[in-house]
Amino acid sequence: MTCHLKPDARAVTIAVGSELLTPDRTDTNSLFVTARLNAIGIDVAAKHVVGDRRLDLLAVLRESLDHADLVILTGGLGPTADDITRAVVAEAFGVPLLEDGIVLERIRRRFAARGIAMPEINRRQALVPRGATILPNENGTAPGLLFERDGRTVVLLPGPPREMHPMFERFVAEHLAPYAGATRIVRRVLCITGRTESQVDELVQPVYGPWQQADPPIATSILATLGQIELHLSVRAVAPAEGEARLARAAAQLRTVLGTDLFSDDGRSLEQVVGERLLTRRWRIAVAESCTGGLLSSRLTDVPGSSAYVDRGVVCYSNRAKTDLADVPPAIIEQHGAVSEPAAVAMAEGIRLRAGVEVGVGITGIAGPGGGSDTKPVGTVVVAIAYPDGHTVRTMRFVGGREQIKFQSAQAALDMVRRHLEG
Amino acid sequence: MTCHLKPDARAVTIAVGSELLTPDRTDTNSLFVTARLNAIGIDVAAKHVVGDRRLDLLAVLRESLDHADLVILTGGLGPTADDITRAVVAEAFGVPLLEDGIVLERIRRRFAARGIAMPEINRRQALVPRGATILPNENGTAPGLLFERDGRTVVLLPGPPREMHPMFERFVAEHLAPYAGATRIVRRVLCITGRTESQVDELVQPVYGPWQQADPPIATSILATLGQIELHLSVRAVAPAEGEARLARAAAQLRTVLGTDLFSDDGRSLEQVVGERLLTRRWRIAVAESCTGGLLSSRLTDVPGSSAYVDRGVVCYSNRAKTDLADVPPAIIEQHGAVSEPAAVAMAEGIRLRAGVEVGVGITGIAGPGGGSDTKPVGTVVVAIAYPDGHTVRTMRFVGGREQIKFQSAQAALDMVRRHLEG
Repeated sequence: MTCHLKPDARAVTIAVGSELLTPDRTDTNSLFVTARLNAIGIDVAAKHVVGDRRLDLLAVLRESLDHADLVILTGGLGPTADDITRAVVAEAFGVPLLEDGIVLERIRRRFAARGIAMPEINRRQALVPRGATILPNENGTAPGLLFERDGRTVVLLPGPPREMHPMFERFVAEHLAPYAGATRIVRRVLCITGRTESQVDELVQPVYGPWQQADPPIATSILATLGQIELHLSVRAVAPAEGEARLARAAAQLRTVLGTDLFSDDGRSLEQVVGERLLTRRWRIAVAESCTGGLLSSRLTDVPGSSAYVDRGVVCYSNRAKTDLADVPPAIIEQHGAVSEPAAVAMAEGIRLRAGVEVGVGITGIAGPGGGSDTKPVGTVVVAIAYPDGHTVRTMRFVGGREQIKFQSAQAALDMVRRHLEG
Repeated sequence: MTCHLKPDARAVTIAVGSELLTPDRTDTNSLFVTARLNAIGIDVAAKHVVGDRRLDLLAVLRESLDHADLVILTGGLGPTADDITRAVVAEAFGVPLLEDGIVLERIRRRFAARGIAMPEINRRQALVPRGATILPNENGTAPGLLFERDGRTVVLLPGPPREMHPMFERFVAEHLAPYAGATRIVRRVLCITGRTESQVDELVQPVYGPWQQADPPIATSILATLGQIELHLSVRAVAPAEGEARLARAAAQLRTVLGTDLFSDDGRSLEQVVGERLLTRRWRIAVAESCTGGLLSSRLTDVPGSSAYVDRGVVCYSNRAKTDLADVPPAIIEQHGAVSEPAAVAMAEGIRLRAGVEVGVGITGIAGPGGGSDTKPVGTVVVAIAYPDGHTVRTMRFVGGREQIKFQSAQAALDMVRRHLEG
């Protein structure tokens, strides 16, 4: 099989599906594809989203073929009449769609393994533009397709990420790698807490100014996300190791100005960093959550291997549960209220002692939309961390909706634990 | 000012900025714009993202002008050399860019108000394609621009949402509304569990086939997301209430074929539906989670007002915690293992009795990536629900990474509770 991708090849992604043109949906497949293409030196020049309309997809596909070496389409490979990607690609190249016996048999077997006869409509998924290479789908019925013609490569991938990602890793990456350009794009994400976006910009500007004049330059961008600021660095390099070494030196320079506000210089999440710090110190953690409702536990346990240091979590919404599960003395709640520093400290100390671990966390607050008052408005959150030798406690006020307040509260608790473990 | 938008006008969005072509960023401005356009009856036919390269933007803009009545560009209006949107729009229409004295004066005053002299570079933001209407920016320096020519309307908006949103509300919506056509687009999302995408399609095809022939037609699309299938319906209507009534009748028809697999006919999440069912019956719930690590609690408490029915949650990763927090007899774990139906039932019954509530949930399983075995591979999850008069328990096997397995397990538990409450 020949591949016509040139050095410094340019790619375009097209996500197909009318649901991606509604106010609530966004195309995330292109993010995965971009990361994988960048890793082999292919730049993404444009991303498109089109609905299930033949003429719209045809127009965008033709325009893309005029300007890119590689076009990656995701979605529209399902079995229903509004799945048009196969047919439009065949039309764009002027080739017929033919039923592929091997693909059809694979789809039948997939249904049979679940004890179901293949619905007749799934037959459509065995249609292949003549000359296309079939990319087996190990997690679904629709195969991917790879089509090369006129110096252009077009790849059709299923929309569901759990089908698309493994197919890309297994069949597409392998196919494209030998033809990618002479340089690779290497990226690094630094994550920061405790500062605003403009504070970070002011601090780091003197450091990264000179990089933009270097050859090749290190590109930087600052991004404010919920609960953290991210610095994205990228550079082109012939050997990935060389680019990574440059970005590692750049990250080290930034660490000198950002200090402990920089919690991750390789994109690791705050829960991963906290997990590593706990493992290193051989400490275990237990959490008592009110307003975050289990989110802190859930984030801690998103990390593979977290059972080594997460002992337990309790979600104690009601006052009685705070007493039952974290031994909070009812008198403290009566005297200071459930959202108070003494209550948060009692939750942290209580769960720490009950679990017999080194770190206890107590979170209590008002996530809204109801429950606020003049003195304790919605967004008021108290976080306490108890250690073998004492505790820290902070009262904060967050803005946003209920889920944003929950996230920021969990983020603040993780950050307080991190700073104690690093300090 | 004349406006050439036809009834049933089609719009295209173009987000400009190379940072939007990296693996970590997504264009969210188009979601806001889509919601606002739909509300005045304008469909979004395609969304594009292009970098700061003149030829790329020019190609996408020209292709868009061929296929849409309205093109909305966001971003690329800043003061630096890589902000190219103004110049490319002028080039596409063959008009010169001219410095606008009023805009320049407004930018100068904005800086002066902060006690700063306008940097010379910001002069670029006063350049206007000849004939464009200026949209004042109340939250930043870059004005928006509105350009009408050859039966097409092009709107240039700043990229930062805090500048773009108010500008759209104040100046763009007002300008487009009278010309937006006689109809509005109304949408409705139905959510289904317990069926595959093709099963849902086969079931509902006979119902929605005729709608596509109706005038105006009800458009439908089916979407498989993690743990549920979604049916998206949309229709055009002169009055939104009329469209909503048609979609309500359509949803009722679908309910007759989907039965209790249809859990929401207005986009409500499964946790919202479970919350409402609990409230109606005045039941309270308590959960004991192992492999989901608090995710079920967190999802239940994402719902405003959930403190009325969520009593407590416990996250018991270790065997000792299962005994301490949910009274699981150690003998059950010894005999059957921690991931077993007897253990899940003991967790559900234990937490139910401990909390003194009507519904108890126990979840235990192997979220991976480690911990699997031949008989209990990664993805094996047992969910038990205990009620005053008995319990149900199911062993399931999910595919995906750790976070996907957690999500599907929580989804399955919510769905089991829902079906019991509805049954």
